[in-house]
Amino acid sequence: MRAEIITIGDELLIGQVVDTNSAWMAQKLNEQGIELYQITSVHDDRDHIIAALNEAFSRADIVLTTGGLGPTKDDITKHVLCAYFGAHLIEDQNVRAHIEDLYKDRPDVLNRLTATQWLVPDKAIILENRVGSAPLMIFHKEDKLLACMPGVPYEMKIAMEEQILPYIQSKIKNQKSEILHRTIQVTGIAESTLAILLDEFEQTMPSDLHLAYLPKDGMIRLRLSSYGALSEAEMQTYTDQLTELVKDYLIADTDEPIEVLIGRILTERHQTIATAESCTGGKLASLLSKHPGSSAFYYGSVISYDNSVKEHLLGVPAEMIQKHGVVSEEVVRVMAESARKQIGTDFAIATSGIAGPTGGSAAKPVGTVWMAWATPKGTTAECFHLGKLREQITDRACTKALVGLLKILNHKS
Amino acid sequence: MRAEIITIGDELLIGQVVDTNSAWMAQKLNEQGIELYQITSVHDDRDHIIAALNEAFSRADIVLTTGGLGPTKDDITKHVLCAYFGAHLIEDQNVRAHIEDLYKDRPDVLNRLTATQWLVPDKAIILENRVGSAPLMIFHKEDKLLACMPGVPYEMKIAMEEQILPYIQSKIKNQKSEILHRTIQVTGIAESTLAILLDEFEQTMPSDLHLAYLPKDGMIRLRLSSYGALSEAEMQTYTDQLTELVKDYLIADTDEPIEVLIGRILTERHQTIATAESCTGGKLASLLSKHPGSSAFYYGSVISYDNSVKEHLLGVPAEMIQKHGVVSEEVVRVMAESARKQIGTDFAIATSGIAGPTGGSAAKPVGTVWMAWATPKGTTAECFHLGKLREQITDRACTKALVGLLKILNHKS
Repeated sequence: MRAEIITIGDELLIGQVVDTNSAWMAQKLNEQGIELYQITSVHDDRDHIIAALNEAFSRADIVLTTGGLGPTKDDITKHVLCAYFGAHLIEDQNVRAHIEDLYKDRPDVLNRLTATQWLVPDKAIILENRVGSAPLMIFHKEDKLLACMPGVPYEMKIAMEEQILPYIQSKIKNQKSEILHRTIQVTGIAESTLAILLDEFEQTMPSDLHLAYLPKDGMIRLRLSSYGALSEAEMQTYTDQLTELVKDYLIADTDEPIEVLIGRILTERHQTIATAESCTGGKLASLLSKHPGSSAFYYGSVISYDNSVKEHLLGVPAEMIQKHGVVSEEVVRVMAESARKQIGTDFAIATSGIAGPTGGSAAKPVGTVWMAWATPKGTTAECFHLGKLREQITDRACTKALVGLLKILNHKS
Repeated sequence: MRAEIITIGDELLIGQVVDTNSAWMAQKLNEQGIELYQITSVHDDRDHIIAALNEAFSRADIVLTTGGLGPTKDDITKHVLCAYFGAHLIEDQNVRAHIEDLYKDRPDVLNRLTATQWLVPDKAIILENRVGSAPLMIFHKEDKLLACMPGVPYEMKIAMEEQILPYIQSKIKNQKSEILHRTIQVTGIAESTLAILLDEFEQTMPSDLHLAYLPKDGMIRLRLSSYGALSEAEMQTYTDQLTELVKDYLIADTDEPIEVLIGRILTERHQTIATAESCTGGKLASLLSKHPGSSAFYYGSVISYDNSVKEHLLGVPAEMIQKHGVVSEEVVRVMAESARKQIGTDFAIATSGIAGPTGGSAAKPVGTVWMAWATPKGTTAECFHLGKLREQITDRACTKALVGLLKILNHKS
């Protein structure tokens, strides 16, 4: 059972919007045992959309589209689908009632353009878009299926989970294979060195089991994938073998983000954490507070982007900054210990570095980042050189900070 | 002059990685007057890559690929290109010298797998990947061109800017058309209401000028696009007309992120800002510190995810939290004023809300967010209801907070 995604919108092709929908949809399809074969991004253009539909149907059983369903002139997906399937637009009373309810407190929105949203192709099965005005449409084309959703990410997500995936499930049961992915995460080894370490393992793997290497921010994710070939138990055996081979570098035995693993350990142990960030500027706090339930272990942060904040809120002595510089072991140690004490947590992480593009020197070039981890058993600090680009430096600093903490937490268990 | 992008990697099609490369590349191509026609994501699979190359060459003059150039077995792009172009791998002394220099301090990385990176197709023009081991490859196919880059975003970006785009420029001069995009940003009006307001304008526009509506987080970006049809001056005339029509809702006359506009105003005025975040958990700080030069105006933040931090570091009285709740006008006002005073800035923004999935009540459902703006002329506060999904709520809260500040700054000027 193969699917393809077509994302529709000029904004994708001029780079005004990053397509985050496709990765999310891909995960959901894989969980359901549906292989995603290709993602295609096309313009809001009739011929382009039709060509993409024809190509996708030639390769896949299920085609999902996002985008082009708004009420304005630039959105043409519904009209193109009418042309493609020889359908005509008719008023749908359920959709109309839903939209009238959706905007009952905003009469100005119930205008003639919004009214076009309850016109639907007469050959489509219409499913409710609970959180928006664009109805979800399903078309059957011989034994194949097309599902059309809005491009707004949170509308698409609710549509997929509540309507589209259950509908697809009901149509394809018994036709899907079991897609299995297992990912583990390692750090402290180069990709090529790791591949040499795993050479024999890769040579003895069955030919329909695949191993992928995904390096990012100083970590490597190792993913085993099987498309219907292996059972859960067989997959587990290979995953265990792989895990054993890389055990000296293992940081996580799942694909979950490091901050989720940290959160789970801290929550289980009823421990808490704070951050004191300079160069990462809130990115670390944002990661630690991103996931539901984070208030159980994440207490807060002092973001001391300016030196005055380091002095006044974190008690870093001005003379220390004067003597050692703000990017120094001395300063990050005080920052971490002060955050831990003032915020009243078990752990605290501090970062101070030069994210660039300016501010570097021969002794401390752009990319130099000091960080410290304050714990109930004392404080450790480490210096990293994390590259040349601002975003890369702050992303890597967050990864290093979290990996460092995870190591401390794992060591203590 | 048309281009297409092919992104290669199983990780994209199982949703393990979001493709952020394509949007960035699309912007760069547009700036150079090259239209990006389609983006296609394909598996690390020989037949799939070859089919995608054939299709892309049938539509476009320039094809760019990312991904599949690592030293491990799952990366096959270079071998597929050899098959496609009938090329053979030969050792490249320049690439070898570069890689040996790149890893001169890490002898373990100079292993037999890394050595495969200096084998290059004998029919390719090789350009240097200054920050990685995978050489950049250019192939000419009749009058068309293929450029292959690594998928690691920062390697791709440096490759595009320093090597690939200059190479393309040198080959296509005088063949490109002038692509013009102009974007303005509005808020406080529904998309359909806005479209009705602009109906007459749209009807009088030349047929080769396009208007697109891009709603996100309570704002709408309006983009005018012309592919070689209009001059800069003509485009400016239409942009001015559009701007005048929406002036009551206008928040920005460019496509720049709101935090960049804020940063520019604050820097020019030598003013500064701090934040006091609860539900946004560092996301606002992260936005304000994201761009180069932000240390000129952004001083820092107290992230008070736990109530104890609100009390101890921001001086919110426990009785106030007890009486009004932590998500209340009273609390955000104290948070903002305290952050402004303690961090010593001209402005401060505070947020406190229920990001969910738990913590909501009938009176204050998930999505309720109070925020306050403390300024030299006093403090204002406002309550918003920002949806149901955690990420959506915190993203929208950041947009509301920044838009609110931008309005204050514009009002003062």
